[in-house]
Parts: sequence; structure tokens; C-alpha cells
Amino acid sequence: MTKINFSDEYFMQQALNEAKNALHKDEIPVGAVVVCNKQIISRAHNLTETLNDVTAHAEMLAITAAAEFLGGKYLNECTLYVTLEPCTMCAGALSWSQIGRIVFGASDTKRGFSRHTPPVLHPKTNVISGILEKDCSFLITNFFKNKR
Amino acid sequence: MTKINFSDEYFMQQALNEAKNALHKDEIPVGAVVVCNKQIISRAHNLTETLNDVTAHAEMLAITAAAEFLGGKYLNECTLYVTLEPCTMCAGALSWSQIGRIVFGASDTKRGFSRHTPPVLHPKTNVISGILEKDCSFLITNFFKNKR
Repeated sequence: MTKINFSDEYFMQQALNEAKNALHKDEIPVGAVVVCNKQIISRAHNLTETLNDVTAHAEMLAITAAAEFLGGKYLNECTLYVTLEPCTMCAGALSWSQIGRIVFGASDTKRGFSRHTPPVLHPKTNVISGILEKDCSFLITNFFKNKR
Repeated sequence: MTKINFSDEYFMQQALNEAKNALHKDEIPVGAVVVCNKQIISRAHNLTETLNDVTAHAEMLAITAAAEFLGGKYLNECTLYVTLEPCTMCAGALSWSQIGRIVFGASDTKRGFSRHTPPVLHPKTNVISGILEKDCSFLITNFFKNKR
């Protein structure tokens, strides 16, 4: 039996798989998973076109599903893995959830939360970026290149 | 037959009625309506406790319902009336929706979107504040006073 290494790269790969699910639906390829005690408690990908809803970002759907799984709306013991830096809306939601940790792949200089002052996230949330950055970035850059 | 005056005050009163619906459920009393061509196309109130979901703010639910009604995710022809200044998450969602106009009652100096730089909203969105401010503010201040 192969022992799984539950590293940040492992969980980001799961988020990347979700992003690929979005791509297959011609959605902007962003994927997310929420992890609690090394267990994935929710998986989601962007569904804004399918659901005809600007709020249906991967992170939003993953937060709602994680809270449903836990039976509580606070995610302070959880980590969100997402392929792209969360936008202001998603960061606002993550702030309300008091999530413990956020790991994202590619940065988003135009729409990412980190542009804002004062900071959008909860002060106790730890943030790590750049995990599998190349793969995360390629997926989304290529998507928009093919659209033009 | 009484002629209805479709003023900002009229629609804010409808948002206030939604906030009172939240209050009856012991939810933080915030209400919202989305108006298009003087017609209310969605109504919502805060349901974060009922749904166990930090994303279930009145504005988020109203945006999703309005897009569903219109069959399109952009709300550029619409006005959102909300009793409290939208938080960062809701303003981020409103930005994605490209909503034409936002009218809010009470300001929220702690959580309101207007604290942030660069601005969270879409540059084309017009914002008006202070409509029925006293009523909107009383409802929420009183709610928290009774909780302590």
C-alpha cells in the first residue's frame, strides 16, 4: 500500500483536479478543497456560468459545503486550498468563516484580495501562496488565451 | 386607488420589512430587495444562522435570486436596496454583478465595504446612503443591545 503524503502539494493537486472539472464545463478553471484534520471535507469548482450566478465561485461553494459537513459555520480548524488567489468577495466570505489557513496557487494581481487596505481576511488566518503555482497559473492563462 | 410613489424610501421600506423578517428568526436584522424597472425582482433577509452559512447575507441571497429571475448574471439595470452598508464579501459580489445602483440605509464603519482601498465596487456603480437611516440603524443597534 502506498503511503499518501498529505502535503500542501497533495491537497493543491486535488484543488487542481477540481479546476480541471470546471474547464471541462467551459467555466473559468478555478478549483478549491477544504481540509480538516488531513481530510477533505468539501470540493468545489467555479460554476458561475452553469448556475448563472456571480457568487458561485469555487471558494464560496466550498465554504458552504464545509460548513454543512461540519454542522457549524466557523472553519477555524480548516485549510482552504484554491488554485487562484481568492477575489475580494471570496476573501470576505473566508474572513466571516474565520478560516485557519488559506493556501493558494497562482496570484491574481487584478482581482486578488491582497490588493486591499485594510486587509480583508481575519487577522488570525495564515496565508501561503505559490503552491503548484505553475500548473495553477497555466490552466487559467491558457483558458483565456483560447477565448481570445 | 392610491398611487404608489416608487421612491428610494418606498423600496427601502420593503428592505426594512425583510430585515424585520430576519429579526423574527433571531437573525441579525438586515434585509435587501433588488429592483428593476420599478419592480421588485428579489427579496431576501439574512439567514446565516438558519442556513448555518456565513455566505447567506441578505445581499448575496438577493443577488442570486435576481439573476435567477432575469436569466442573466449581470444586474447593471438594477438597484439593490439594503438596510445596512454591504460588507466586503457582499460588495465583492455586487462588483462582479456590475449592479447599476446601490442604496443603503445605515453605515457600517467596522465591516462596511467603503473602508477599503482600492474601492471594492465596480466603477460604474452609483451609491446612495442614509435612506431611512434611523429606522435601519435602530433595528440592528437594538438587536445587539438585547443580545448583551
